[in-house]
Amino acid sequence: MLEQLKEKVFQANLDLPKHGLVKHTWGNASAIDRETGLFVIKPSGVDYETMKAEDMVVVDLNGNTVEEKLKPSSDTATHAALYRRYPEIGGIAHTHSTWATIWAQAGLDVPAMGTTHADTFYGSVPCARQLTKEEVDRGYEKETGNLIIETFEERGLDIMAVPGILIHGHAPFTWGKDAAAAVLNSLVLDEVSKMNLFTRELNHFAKELPKHILDKHYLRKHGAEAYYGQK
Amino acid sequence: MLEQLKEKVFQANLDLPKHGLVKHTWGNASAIDRETGLFVIKPSGVDYETMKAEDMVVVDLNGNTVEEKLKPSSDTATHAALYRRYPEIGGIAHTHSTWATIWAQAGLDVPAMGTTHADTFYGSVPCARQLTKEEVDRGYEKETGNLIIETFEERGLDIMAVPGILIHGHAPFTWGKDAAAAVLNSLVLDEVSKMNLFTRELNHFAKELPKHILDKHYLRKHGAEAYYGQK
Amino acid sequence: MLEQLKEKVFQANLDLPKHGLVKHTWGNASAIDRETGLFVIKPSGVDYETMKAEDMVVVDLNGNTVEEKLKPSSDTATHAALYRRYPEIGGIAHTHSTWATIWAQAGLDVPAMGTTHADTFYGSVPCARQLTKEEVDRGYEKETGNLIIETFEERGLDIMAVPGILIHGHAPFTWGKDAAAAVLNSLVLDEVSKMNLFTRELNHFAKELPKHILDKHYLRKHGAEAYYGQK
Amino acid sequence: MLEQLKEKVFQANLDLPKHGLVKHTWGNASAIDRETGLFVIKPSGVDYETMKAEDMVVVDLNGNTVEEKLKPSSDTATHAALYRRYPEIGGIAHTHSTWATIWAQAGLDVPAMGTTHADTFYGSVPCARQLTKEEVDRGYEKETGNLIIETFEERGLDIMAVPGILIHGHAPFTWGKDAAAAVLNSLVLDEVSKMNLFTRELNHFAKELPKHILDKHYLRKHGAEAYYGQK
Repeated sequence: MLEQLKEKVFQANLDLPKHGLVKHTWGNASAIDRETGLFVIKPSGVDYETMKAEDMVVVDLNGNTVEEKLKPSSDTATHAALYRRYPEIGGIAHTHSTWATIWAQAGLDVPAMGTTHADTFYGSVPCARQLTKEEVDRGYEKETGNLIIETFEERGLDIMAVPGILIHGHAPFTWGKDAAAAVLNSLVLDEVSKMNLFTRELNHFAKELPKHILDKHYLRKHGAEAYYGQK
Repeated sequence: MLEQLKEKVFQANLDLPKHGLVKHTWGNASAIDRETGLFVIKPSGVDYETMKAEDMVVVDLNGNTVEEKLKPSSDTATHAALYRRYPEIGGIAHTHSTWATIWAQAGLDVPAMGTTHADTFYGSVPCARQLTKEEVDRGYEKETGNLIIETFEERGLDIMAVPGILIHGHAPFTWGKDAAAAVLNSLVLDEVSKMNLFTRELNHFAKELPKHILDKHYLRKHGAEAYYGQK
Repeated sequence: MLEQLKEKVFQANLDLPKHGLVKHTWGNASAIDRETGLFVIKPSGVDYETMKAEDMVVVDLNGNTVEEKLKPSSDTATHAALYRRYPEIGGIAHTHSTWATIWAQAGLDVPAMGTTHADTFYGSVPCARQLTKEEVDRGYEKETGNLIIETFEERGLDIMAVPGILIHGHAPFTWGKDAAAAVLNSLVLDEVSKMNLFTRELNHFAKELPKHILDKHYLRKHGAEAYYGQK
Repeated sequence: MLEQLKEKVFQANLDLPKHGLVKHTWGNASAIDRETGLFVIKPSGVDYETMKAEDMVVVDLNGNTVEEKLKPSSDTATHAALYRRYPEIGGIAHTHSTWATIWAQAGLDVPAMGTTHADTFYGSVPCARQLTKEEVDRGYEKETGNLIIETFEERGLDIMAVPGILIHGHAPFTWGKDAAAAVLNSLVLDEVSKMNLFTRELNHFAKELPKHILDKHYLRKHGAEAYYGQK
């Protein structure tokens, strides 16, 4: 079932190590079929080199496996929470990519310091707080999903205009209209994390991008007036 | 039309990701045919892995597409402004290469701290100011071209002796006698940006190259007395 | 003899340069057959590109070569000391991987600052002191093994819960249930060494992971209640 | 003539970009035939991707081309000066490798901070001063060779125990018993330059290796009592 979606999710998962975003088995990507309300995700702890498209696992929005084969990613409950809350999200990626994880470990939002950032993220990428002991005991992965939702709601952020977040002490999650977009947003987040770290090393007083340039770059790629690409 | 130039521009564009200067679709290279006054540039937002030589777009010096096929790079008006103003320029490249972009985000000129720099750039590579809101509203890409011209004129720099610039908060542009030279200058600019950042980290008091060594290295490769290479 | 183990140790050694953990001949991996009490290790100073599985050297727990062919790694006595003292260890890897070696040169323990670390190492990875002149004279490689044992005993650490160590001024050693696990732990140690260095650069006040998250991540992969992977 | 040596020098030159030590045409390796007193060196400014073994240039100890074909590397006079002064040297390499060049630009000696360094360089790798205007005018490349000799003599260093140097504001030169050894020493120098920069970033008070460990590592690979490798 969902063979085409499995193939797309499989390719998106392979793109994670290909782009240097994932070492070993530290990452996963998923995508949802909104008609059936089922999503497809990487199996847990399976090696990228031997994994096949048919190993992808079909899961419902409660995170329960629908087909009996491999166990889904241990982060499945986080993906499920986001798909339930945000109907706009079509795909999700989770990595421990080096530079985004560094900002997550530092507990800092990634500010919009250049147009590379503004082309994808309309403002700072937030860093969510760490889960409490009570939340971890209640259900680590599900509560991570709830924490992402809480962070976007408290800050009043548009989930598709800022398609990613860092979890303090952990690593990034990104999303998009499908699995490929989610993976691409992981790539962008890692690259701007690297650039911004060294920008501030080079000039401790380097400023965030002024609003009129942030607007220009985000809006020339996104929204009604977009003119980037072949559309 | 301009089939040979399309092939060269295509190869120059492929060299950008090959040298690690471009991820995703964040870059473009072009070259001009001075006889017809037409230039060839990468199409907008097209994937490097599937792009073909025939996808290259022919544009006139006003930035208008001559052949009806794909849309040209969104940065076409910047390229056009430079080709109009400087008849010496034969090719232009634009990337968001990591280390040059870091200096652009920091808003700093890249000083000539070593002979790797002096072999290509005869002095500091300037960082232009950010565009004002009025300039962005008037035409972001064209005004970026005008800003480059303004910066070179205000500083009295020779466009071919310093074949590159950073735009504050954005990224580098480089140029040369053809598209391949422009791409090579992007590679040099990124490498010296990396070296110079860490040189100053290692020794906060590291100095710029003295004039007699800057002269020696630049002039053994360029100008009337050059003796580097097989010419 | 031990042909299957030779093949596994050979593959583990090849994985060291493949993962970027070893340049030139700066590394070695071994694995033990607990039934015979013999272990298999890389030959000394042999090029990874020309090395064959049959070049692997069989050694007893006193570090003496059992088959007469090539000389074993110069670090054989360190491996032997660890295999003698810890029956749980099935494989050992030694590299001069860039980022772990940087922490070793700095003489600092690698703190657990994120879940990438907690998934593999249950707390800080210790940095052992430098050997004294007397210890070096008595037998450099064997005393390095004894120093590792001394460090784990003095700190009361569980050898399998913290499967790695740095030697001040030298480089890391890691271990695991077999050679592949030892190599994977080298990869993790190098990656968290890189992440943690830049985390503290980005935020000098970045804290170690709180205990409840360290516990959660370590225990969801290890121990009786583990639920990561397909087991 | 010297066909075998040309083949070896060609391979050594190809190893420079393969190991990431050279981008574009920024490097060269050579080796000498002590019987004829002729040495073989890379041609000037030729692309590594199209270069052939037969393109290597034969030069005498005055730096004059013996066979009329391509022009030798612009750094030929530096190589010649070292071959004339030090009969122990069999091969020389020059690169602008990133991390060694950073120390050269910073104008600092690379201290021996770990065993990776001590395995190859018996103490700090010196950074020579910059050439004066008079020296540059007199003959830049030859005077660079004389400066290397001056630096080793003033400091009383053994040319084969410390087989490399940095030129302030320029880049490294390394040497060895043949071209392959010279290239390997370039690799080591670049790697320890990277490690040492970040060691001091991580711990501003990190110390150099104590003498008894420097001695142990250098002497277990070199000298009469060496026991590393298969000899």
